[in-house]
Amino acid sequence: MADNQTFEIIFEANAVAVGKMRNDIEVSWPRMQETFSLATDEGAFHGGDGTAPPPLALFAAALCGCLMTQIRAFAKRMRLSLDGLQLSSKFHWQGETTPSNVYETQPIEFEIIIHIESSNDQERIIELITAAKLGCFIEQSLSKDFPIKHYVVHNGESIEI
Amino acid sequence: MADNQTFEIIFEANAVAVGKMRNDIEVSWPRMQETFSLATDEGAFHGGDGTAPPPLALFAAALCGCLMTQIRAFAKRMRLSLDGLQLSSKFHWQGETTPSNVYETQPIEFEIIIHIESSNDQERIIELITAAKLGCFIEQSLSKDFPIKHYVVHNGESIEI
Repeated sequence: MADNQTFEIIFEANAVAVGKMRNDIEVSWPRMQETFSLATDEGAFHGGDGTAPPPLALFAAALCGCLMTQIRAFAKRMRLSLDGLQLSSKFHWQGETTPSNVYETQPIEFEIIIHIESSNDQERIIELITAAKLGCFIEQSLSKDFPIKHYVVHNGESIEI
Repeated sequence: MADNQTFEIIFEANAVAVGKMRNDIEVSWPRMQETFSLATDEGAFHGGDGTAPPPLALFAAALCGCLMTQIRAFAKRMRLSLDGLQLSSKFHWQGETTPSNVYETQPIEFEIIIHIESSNDQERIIELITAAKLGCFIEQSLSKDFPIKHYVVHNGESIEI
């Protein structure tokens, strides 16, 4: 469409390694003049002090939060009812040790189950979830080389999308 | 190598939409019996109350934290000195509005500058950063369809890796 409009979203992050395994991370959104102080750490098994969530916990929360935010924002834009929204998800990675005593990693499968309460019919709900996937900045940044399975549970019926 | 060993990392997340745009997200790491309570929200411009960072801030922190954690963990495993580690990064996405009043998103470019203080030579530092990229669960989950640029600044010299 000739009249589609584009917009840019730019975040910046400055991080410093402190303590044993902790990272203090200042994330800023310059256009909104907003800054967020975040941190990661590791548990004792990985040499840390457990003062903050590990990076993979932040990642899981980020992806869930992004998708849910777009489902809510797009439901309004598409004039759909949304009476309840919950999500349960599982993130599976594999590591493989190498001869140089480190390890290489790969994603195996992500599974996201979207529980949605809405008076709209299944067809419209599928349109909503499909749009939210395409509107989720994080999901669109993920590799296409491993399965990311989405299921929506709407009025008690589970559908893969 | 026949004697390489694999291991699985599985995180789970359960999230519920509350308030205007807030999401409460319980992330668990069942094998470690650990649970982390996280949240996302949006600012007023996007209909939220600003009670928590937006999902993209968590994402940026997660990727920075994961890469830094592996640089530190792998420096030990590779017997390298590491006297200082900081990271500055920029995450650029684009949105494009659609005729159905929503928008589609895509990553444009991520840039990560790794500032490292180490008495080891450049060749070993490049080995370390290369290994950490392959060992970063989050980076390995990202799309290969857009540029993710890495630079290491070591002893005042910037090198693209």
